[in-house]
Amino acid sequence: MFFASDNSGPVHLSVLTALSTANDGYAMGYGGDELTAETVARIREVFEAPEAAVYLVATGTAANSLALATYAQPFQTVFCSDVAHIHEDECNAPEFYTGGAKLTLVPTTDGRMTPEALRATIAGEGTRGVHGPKPGPVSITNVTERGTRYTSAEIAALAAVARENGLPVHLDGARFANALVAEGCTPAEMTWKAGVDVVSFGGTKNGLMGVEAVVLFDPARALEFEYRRKRGGHLFSKHRYLTAQMAAYLERDLWLDLARRANAANARLTRALGQIPEVSFLWEPGANMTFAAWPAAAHRRLFAAGAKYHLWEGSLDGAADDAPIGARLVCDWSMTDENIDRFVDILRG
Amino acid sequence: MFFASDNSGPVHLSVLTALSTANDGYAMGYGGDELTAETVARIREVFEAPEAAVYLVATGTAANSLALATYAQPFQTVFCSDVAHIHEDECNAPEFYTGGAKLTLVPTTDGRMTPEALRATIAGEGTRGVHGPKPGPVSITNVTERGTRYTSAEIAALAAVARENGLPVHLDGARFANALVAEGCTPAEMTWKAGVDVVSFGGTKNGLMGVEAVVLFDPARALEFEYRRKRGGHLFSKHRYLTAQMAAYLERDLWLDLARRANAANARLTRALGQIPEVSFLWEPGANMTFAAWPAAAHRRLFAAGAKYHLWEGSLDGAADDAPIGARLVCDWSMTDENIDRFVDILRG
Amino acid sequence: MFFASDNSGPVHLSVLTALSTANDGYAMGYGGDELTAETVARIREVFEAPEAAVYLVATGTAANSLALATYAQPFQTVFCSDVAHIHEDECNAPEFYTGGAKLTLVPTTDGRMTPEALRATIAGEGTRGVHGPKPGPVSITNVTERGTRYTSAEIAALAAVARENGLPVHLDGARFANALVAEGCTPAEMTWKAGVDVVSFGGTKNGLMGVEAVVLFDPARALEFEYRRKRGGHLFSKHRYLTAQMAAYLERDLWLDLARRANAANARLTRALGQIPEVSFLWEPGANMTFAAWPAAAHRRLFAAGAKYHLWEGSLDGAADDAPIGARLVCDWSMTDENIDRFVDILRG
Amino acid sequence: MFFASDNSGPVHLSVLTALSTANDGYAMGYGGDELTAETVARIREVFEAPEAAVYLVATGTAANSLALATYAQPFQTVFCSDVAHIHEDECNAPEFYTGGAKLTLVPTTDGRMTPEALRATIAGEGTRGVHGPKPGPVSITNVTERGTRYTSAEIAALAAVARENGLPVHLDGARFANALVAEGCTPAEMTWKAGVDVVSFGGTKNGLMGVEAVVLFDPARALEFEYRRKRGGHLFSKHRYLTAQMAAYLERDLWLDLARRANAANARLTRALGQIPEVSFLWEPGANMTFAAWPAAAHRRLFAAGAKYHLWEGSLDGAADDAPIGARLVCDWSMTDENIDRFVDILRG
Repeated sequence: MFFASDNSGPVHLSVLTALSTANDGYAMGYGGDELTAETVARIREVFEAPEAAVYLVATGTAANSLALATYAQPFQTVFCSDVAHIHEDECNAPEFYTGGAKLTLVPTTDGRMTPEALRATIAGEGTRGVHGPKPGPVSITNVTERGTRYTSAEIAALAAVARENGLPVHLDGARFANALVAEGCTPAEMTWKAGVDVVSFGGTKNGLMGVEAVVLFDPARALEFEYRRKRGGHLFSKHRYLTAQMAAYLERDLWLDLARRANAANARLTRALGQIPEVSFLWEPGANMTFAAWPAAAHRRLFAAGAKYHLWEGSLDGAADDAPIGARLVCDWSMTDENIDRFVDILRG
Repeated sequence: MFFASDNSGPVHLSVLTALSTANDGYAMGYGGDELTAETVARIREVFEAPEAAVYLVATGTAANSLALATYAQPFQTVFCSDVAHIHEDECNAPEFYTGGAKLTLVPTTDGRMTPEALRATIAGEGTRGVHGPKPGPVSITNVTERGTRYTSAEIAALAAVARENGLPVHLDGARFANALVAEGCTPAEMTWKAGVDVVSFGGTKNGLMGVEAVVLFDPARALEFEYRRKRGGHLFSKHRYLTAQMAAYLERDLWLDLARRANAANARLTRALGQIPEVSFLWEPGANMTFAAWPAAAHRRLFAAGAKYHLWEGSLDGAADDAPIGARLVCDWSMTDENIDRFVDILRG
Repeated sequence: MFFASDNSGPVHLSVLTALSTANDGYAMGYGGDELTAETVARIREVFEAPEAAVYLVATGTAANSLALATYAQPFQTVFCSDVAHIHEDECNAPEFYTGGAKLTLVPTTDGRMTPEALRATIAGEGTRGVHGPKPGPVSITNVTERGTRYTSAEIAALAAVARENGLPVHLDGARFANALVAEGCTPAEMTWKAGVDVVSFGGTKNGLMGVEAVVLFDPARALEFEYRRKRGGHLFSKHRYLTAQMAAYLERDLWLDLARRANAANARLTRALGQIPEVSFLWEPGANMTFAAWPAAAHRRLFAAGAKYHLWEGSLDGAADDAPIGARLVCDWSMTDENIDRFVDILRG
Repeated sequence: MFFASDNSGPVHLSVLTALSTANDGYAMGYGGDELTAETVARIREVFEAPEAAVYLVATGTAANSLALATYAQPFQTVFCSDVAHIHEDECNAPEFYTGGAKLTLVPTTDGRMTPEALRATIAGEGTRGVHGPKPGPVSITNVTERGTRYTSAEIAALAAVARENGLPVHLDGARFANALVAEGCTPAEMTWKAGVDVVSFGGTKNGLMGVEAVVLFDPARALEFEYRRKRGGHLFSKHRYLTAQMAAYLERDLWLDLARRANAANARLTRALGQIPEVSFLWEPGANMTFAAWPAAAHRRLFAAGAKYHLWEGSLDGAADDAPIGARLVCDWSMTDENIDRFVDILRG
């Protein structure tokens, strides 16, 4: 009953197989091998972006920070939600990689920026001339850090606000696949057709060991990105082992299949939770992550039974048995129905 | 006949097996799993350093830059050889991670700093008060970028110069294992017993996919390193897949075995080359990398036969057949005698 | 009728005289002259801090950023009010000088942090391990950017919260003198006796051309500060011309006299404004800066008559004559009663 | 007998007068005043560059670092002489302001780069793809740090090498006026007509308290420079006091007059030194700075008589009386014939 994170599950077996296959003799380092060229071409197909520049890195923080650094000057500010991963969970990596840019937080209630809030926040930063930072990129996360989801149309609406202000748009797609299959749109529709300039296309949370692709739809910044990746220590010498994972991910749409499994598991979970009167949802689950609250006694039963998940802004210490306490539950691709049902049964008591 | 680099060869099969074994269900992320704790303990044993702080990252540039950033202030300068990897091949990563420290180059003839040259260089930087940078860490590479090697005693002599000046010592051990088995000393003798404060303990060039350990012998800087690793985007969420590689590397001293294989291959190669009158060595080969020169005609024969290696500061374009041209040859752990013999046969003509 | 800023008024004549006196022949550069040594000693006396390290720079942004950089690591976050000058008006200078530290904003209603809000904000940042930044310095501004003021006791209460968390305390004293004379306490009481580690002791807004002193009560960081000042380009070669201004400032307590004049002017202004029914104060004026609102028609009269000041979060464009619109009014040391009275008369209509 | 530095002499009286005149009542801050607009226009005239962007800062390190940061990316390297002020005397400020760019040193014998050496150095940096830094700006210093001088034609030859490689050109003109009057050319001839993109136009070493202008001949980078200046803490709120100095400097060509005085003094000095058999010149004096060697005994006489200057890479400690020891002598605008003659007399013995 491991609902703690989608970075704690196993990788798909085809990833291991791909690594083994890639391990055949010598290959040019640093991405100069044939498999990398093929995989880059495949990602361009997936995104219907034949000119896009595509690079692989091993962590989501690297993908986001390098993407932002390529689009933000150090004297600018990046606009993102007040719960954005780049703000809360990357230990100043965006500030580091941009050379000291600021993050300006757009207030949200459920992790999703509205166009109005974004517009007002940008306007607020644009009033002080050189005394304040220059407005810079807008960064959108989908799936959001609260488990909610933007539709492609909603992303397009945010990107339109960015465009009004002449600002580029970054999409943190650590859970891109989960958002995509939940909506049922194409990668192009969720990115460049919606006005996104650069996307962190996540693989790690969806069945890979540690691979993210950064896709820059305007290849003019490609060389800059390459230098920045290298000086960040994120260019792998034995690059084929990143590539092999990504190739397996894309092969016969494995990535979509894995995301559908995770989302289906989450749907089963939320359906069951929704039928328990003591359970309330903190935000509307949009893909594979659910925030909900239920009585402390049920948490105690679950932890006693070995369930793994994070409490959400609350503590069981000294809590009354009927006190509602929040939880964050994440389903990864390998989550089983059995686990879900057992979890719900114990919760129900 | 692939002598281009030790980052172009395959990984050892036990690495693949270890990844497969590690892929068993859920594990805590970010290094919070049991295997990581065990592997850290094992590295401490290897280095006879029970208090050391040990961290895994995926690239040598990350290891070096994070180690240096933990020991250097942005207003300092790092002392290293004029051919150091951190100077020539990391695209300003040390400058980036330290926040703008400088590298001051110690002149060398064969990639090895002498204590005298190091002392003179440090003295030269210490004369301008706040107008020049403050002297900072000394960084030593072993095996050097010219294929030569320091003994532990030579490292101790350099570290003594650092200590005279109150400076910490970093060892770039991208080929640590190759240097170690060539000398036949212990990891402790080549590091903390010689005065090294922090070592980049390389695995990638010696049979892993991409794992380096940073070992800080003084744990006082451990927390700082952790924050710096995270904000550099080098903390892996699915950390177990780094750990599994390192665990396999240390298991039954595989790492030493692999290094011995690479060094033995290089010895076979240099023995054969030494018997060819037209071949001259540029520097004395100390481990698994050889720099040598021979007539252009022989280079042409080799490339025509499919040999892969880098010319060294020369070009075949328009070169007379008997003009000597340099080459860099690197043997990795998987190099076969057959390959070596064939290479030498073709070279000999 | 110039109420726009205290950086727009003239310098006191004794400053010009001091520059002229200092211009006598040769002097050692970079602060190595005798007058600098004497002036440093004088500042130590003023602060009753015989061990303090004291440095002069030319701008408040330099003073604040260098002070924070000396106390904050790049992987930390600085706690400050949501309207702090270091956040709103320094164009990412703190992020730049610290190498990418973050600023975490403490919510305020009148520019003043409460101990409770500060404590809660620090606690909120301390929950994510290396995923979030490490808590770093607390920065307090007195006089605040809303014209309100902390007492020394209130500063001590904030510093106590910092101490609970092991964090150092910076005081942005761009208007230190104004705060000091308003309370009637000593410089020591408002700084180190209250728990402040480093203060930006402002001169520019109080009658100098451009000089601020940074006073570090713990001299252990002195050398680091010197290197950071130099590499920021803030070490003046002809340092005596900074020193001469500061010496004149301290001579016979000119600085206190100038601040008293500015505060008295502001008191005259607010007294008069308080008697006009249409005028409401946005926050309680604590020293020499007042935020108030009055009908648009009165603003129009004032601007027509040549008054200079900034509207506060409002616009006269299309505003009804009786619509209340905010204004920021600042009195510098040279403000005359005549100007104030005329301003109020016109406002009153 | 103060030959230690041209930053140790007094400012010209007209500078003090200008400050006094500028101190008339209120003025808009941050360069928004009329005098600044006029002075910018005047500098454009001086450089025959009606479109140029012109900014004032207070130190040469600020001018150089901000200029370089505007033209260099953090993953680039700046080419400069091995004795450049930006390398030797700015405590990593260029590395800081560029966000971690490297400086690649061009070997010189007398402080002057040759086109051949520059071309070879650039070529050497361009061979490693993303493993090495990307070639960035070329920075030239005139007058050089060895007192030698480039002609405008020599600068044009260096700039041509930069252009071949697509690189921008920075001129560190801390002693621009001295170089200019020594050659007898126009500011335009020494800068944009020779291929210079941005110049640090020094005033501090030539009679001002602390003002340098940065002139960007392509105004496209103007806004970026403004943001960078602000976030460096180098935008003066009471900007008029920088402007007033620069205005006085340009008034009736005072700047050229002051430089002519300094150069004439240096010429008198070198003429006299040249007639003393025991004196040898280290490099050919080109403007107002001379490096020469003479017997230790004469140094001892001079210091005993109160002369102030720096020894050059040597020490009197234990030196034999007839041992030649080097010295650096700098004449500022206020140097008197009497001082020079007395210095030479004592030296002669």
